[in-house]
Amino acid sequence: MPETTPDAHDAVEVITAKRDRHALSDSQIDWAVDAYTRGAVADEQMAALAMAILLNGMDRREIARWTAAMIASGERMDFSSLSRPTADKHSTGGVGDKITLPLAPLVAACGVAVPQLSGRGLGHTGGTLDKLESVPGWRASLSNEEMLAQLESVGAVICAAGDGLAPADKKLYALRDVTGTVEAIPLIASSIMSKKIAEGTGALVLDVKVGTGAFMKSVADARELASTMVALGQDAGVHTVALLTDMAVPLGRTAGNALEVTESVEVLAGGGPADVVELTLALAREMLAGAGVTDVDPADRLADGSAMDVWRRMIRAQGGDPEAPLPTARETHVVTAPASGVLDRLDAMAVGLAAWRLGAGRARKEDPVQAGAGVEWHARPGDRLTEGQPLFTLHSDDEHRFGRALESLDGGWSIGASYEPGPLVIDRIA
Amino acid sequence: MPETTPDAHDAVEVITAKRDRHALSDSQIDWAVDAYTRGAVADEQMAALAMAILLNGMDRREIARWTAAMIASGERMDFSSLSRPTADKHSTGGVGDKITLPLAPLVAACGVAVPQLSGRGLGHTGGTLDKLESVPGWRASLSNEEMLAQLESVGAVICAAGDGLAPADKKLYALRDVTGTVEAIPLIASSIMSKKIAEGTGALVLDVKVGTGAFMKSVADARELASTMVALGQDAGVHTVALLTDMAVPLGRTAGNALEVTESVEVLAGGGPADVVELTLALAREMLAGAGVTDVDPADRLADGSAMDVWRRMIRAQGGDPEAPLPTARETHVVTAPASGVLDRLDAMAVGLAAWRLGAGRARKEDPVQAGAGVEWHARPGDRLTEGQPLFTLHSDDEHRFGRALESLDGGWSIGASYEPGPLVIDRIA
Repeated sequence: MPETTPDAHDAVEVITAKRDRHALSDSQIDWAVDAYTRGAVADEQMAALAMAILLNGMDRREIARWTAAMIASGERMDFSSLSRPTADKHSTGGVGDKITLPLAPLVAACGVAVPQLSGRGLGHTGGTLDKLESVPGWRASLSNEEMLAQLESVGAVICAAGDGLAPADKKLYALRDVTGTVEAIPLIASSIMSKKIAEGTGALVLDVKVGTGAFMKSVADARELASTMVALGQDAGVHTVALLTDMAVPLGRTAGNALEVTESVEVLAGGGPADVVELTLALAREMLAGAGVTDVDPADRLADGSAMDVWRRMIRAQGGDPEAPLPTARETHVVTAPASGVLDRLDAMAVGLAAWRLGAGRARKEDPVQAGAGVEWHARPGDRLTEGQPLFTLHSDDEHRFGRALESLDGGWSIGASYEPGPLVIDRIA
Repeated sequence: MPETTPDAHDAVEVITAKRDRHALSDSQIDWAVDAYTRGAVADEQMAALAMAILLNGMDRREIARWTAAMIASGERMDFSSLSRPTADKHSTGGVGDKITLPLAPLVAACGVAVPQLSGRGLGHTGGTLDKLESVPGWRASLSNEEMLAQLESVGAVICAAGDGLAPADKKLYALRDVTGTVEAIPLIASSIMSKKIAEGTGALVLDVKVGTGAFMKSVADARELASTMVALGQDAGVHTVALLTDMAVPLGRTAGNALEVTESVEVLAGGGPADVVELTLALAREMLAGAGVTDVDPADRLADGSAMDVWRRMIRAQGGDPEAPLPTARETHVVTAPASGVLDRLDAMAVGLAAWRLGAGRARKEDPVQAGAGVEWHARPGDRLTEGQPLFTLHSDDEHRFGRALESLDGGWSIGASYEPGPLVIDRIA
C-alpha cells in the first residue's frame, strides 16, 4: 500500500481539483484509489472524478501514479523463481483475434515462459477464455501455485486472472462501464497496465487494434493509448513495446469460440490464414526480443511441430483433451455471393456483431456463450468471387438468431472491381 | 409528468451524448430526470452526467427542459384563488443577508402577497428559517392549506418548502453537494427556478450576490447565472427580474440568527443600517412592479408602521411571539481597533466563516444552530475608527469557539486612510 494518512484528503477536494484542470498530487491519487477500494469514496464520487479525468485528462506522472495506486490495491505476482524469462501479450480486443492461442505455446517453444492472464468477452469482441472453454475438459481457473508449476513444466499458461490482482481496477472498470467513462485514455491505459505490471511479467507486447472493429477508431487515438501504456510499462521496469495493428478487417477466416480454436490449431500445424500467421510471428518476435532471446526464429518452431507440442501439453495441464472433437453448432446458414467480382470490403464490426448475435458473445457478464456459434467468411478482401459461391457460413444453436445476424452483416461487405490492401502492422511504438 | 416512454433511453447513452458535447434532446432530458427520481438512473450515473454538464454546458433550450422536468417530478402550487397578486424573492445567499425578513411583510403591506418558501443555512451563509426560529414559538412548517389561508389573511408567509415540490431537485442537490458538481450554472439555475416556478408565484425578483462572500465571485459569472434564470422564469410565464448586488462586504451590521432578526425589526421600525434599507426597498419596488402594483411607495409603508404591523401578524400566525425577548449568546468577546483610521476593508467571507464557527451555521444539515451566536461589526467600510474602540463583538454559547472565529476574521479587514465605496446594486437584468 502507498503510505497515505487515512482521509488526508476528501473526495470533493480531489474531484474539484481535476474538474478545474489541476494536476492531482501523488498524495491525492494514492488517497482516492485507496479510499475508493475500501469504500470511503462513494461510487457517485468516483464517477464524477472519472468523467473529469475523461474530459480534462491526466499528465504522464498522474497516470503512472494512478497505475501504481491500482497495483498497490492488491497482490503482486512474482515469477523470478522460474528458470526462464517471462513475456506476456495484451490485445485491446478485435474481431477474430485468436492470436493468444497459437502465440503463447509458440513463444514457450522458443524458451520464454508466457503467463497469460486473460478475460472473457463482452460485446462484439470474443474472449480468450471463452474460446479455450470450447475445448472439452479445459478449465480457466488455476491457483497461483498451479500457474507457477505449469509455467515451469510446460512454459505457457492461459488462465483467468485471480481476484487478488488490482481489485481497484475491477471495481473501477465495472463503474466506468455504466457511467459512460470507459473511453478515457488515462483510465484505459492504467487499467490494462496495472494488471500486467502486478502480474510480474518481465516483457510485455501490446497489440493495440485500430479500425472499425476496434475500441480505438483512429490511428491518432491508438497511438496515444499505445504511447501512454509503453511509458507506464517502462517506468515500472517492464520491457514494453506496442504494435498498432489493423482491425478494419477481421483477423483470419472465423469469429467464434470453437471456430477460432480450430483456426489456431491450423496455424500451430504450420497452416492457417496468412494474416493470423503474420501477426502471430510479429508478436512472437517482439516478445522474444523483450525477453532477451534473439537466437530463435519462431517460424521454425511452427514448422517443426514444437509449438503444437507445447499447445497439447498446455491444454492437457489444464484438464483439456487436445484430441477431442470440438463442439459444433446445431444449425448453419450459408450466404452466397450475389455477383462476381472482388470482395473489396469486409467490416470487422459487422462481422463481430453478427458472431455476437449468433451466440458467440454475451450481452451481460453472467450470460453463457455458445461454443459452436460464430461466423466463417470464405473470402478475404482482395479475393475474387464467382456469383453463387459461398461467402459466409453462419453457425448457431438457435435458428432464430440468423435473422438479426444477417442484419448485422448487411452493408458490412461489398463486391467491386479491385481492393488496395493496407499493412497489418501499422506502427511500432517502443 | 412529461410523457416519456419508460426506458426510452439508457443512462450511458445520455451521459455519452453530453460527454461528447452534443445537446441533449427533450426526450433524453425528460427521461433522465424522471428515471433518476424513480431510481432507474443510479447516483453514479447522474454524477457522471452532472460533471459532463458542468464541463460541457447546456444551451437555453436544454436548461429550460431540464427545469421543466424537475418541476414535473413533483406537485405545483396554485395561488390563483387569492384576492391579490403574488411576488417572491430569491437570494443566491450572502453574509448578513436578512433582507427576506423585512421585505416579505413590507411587500405584503403594499398589497402584494408574498409566499416565501425558504431554506436552512449550510456553510458560511445563514438560512432564513434558522433566523426566524430564534423567535420564541415560531414554526417553519405549514401545510399548503395553512400557507394559503395565511397569505389571504396576513399577506406574507415565510416557511419551509414542502417535500412535494421538485423532489428531483432535492435528490440531485444532495448528490451535487458530494460530487463536486455544485458549481454548474445550468444546474444552479434549474435548481432555483424549478422550485420557484413550481411554487406558482406570479412575479419573481432574484437577488444574485457577487463578491468574496457570495457563491459567484465574478460579475461575469453572476451575470450569466442571472440571465439564465431570468430567461427560465420568462419562458415559464413568471415575471422575473434579477438584481446583481454586492457581497464583497457583508450586509448591515450583524451576521447570526437572533442578531439579524433584531436588525430586521429595526428596519421595520424605520431605522436600521442604510444598506439593508436600500436593498430592501430596491427589491420591494421590483416585486411590486412585477406584480403590477405601481401606485405605492414601500418607503411610506416602513415609515407609517404598516410593514411592522404585518411582521407582527406574520410571526403570530406561525406561533411566534413578536414581543418576546430574543435569545442571546452566553459569551461575548470584543475586538478593538488596533489603530486609528478608516476601515477600508471588511471581507464578507471572513465574517461569514467567523459567524459559522461561532455556532450560527452548521457543517452538516442535521446539525443544530445557536440562536444567539454570530458577529456584530461596529463599523462599516468608510467609517472612521479611533484606536481602542470596539470593532467586532463575537457572540457564542461556547467560549472555546472564539479562537477559530478570530482566525477567520484575521486578515479579513484592515484600517487605512480612505475607502472608495462601490454601488450596492451593480446591475439589473430583465
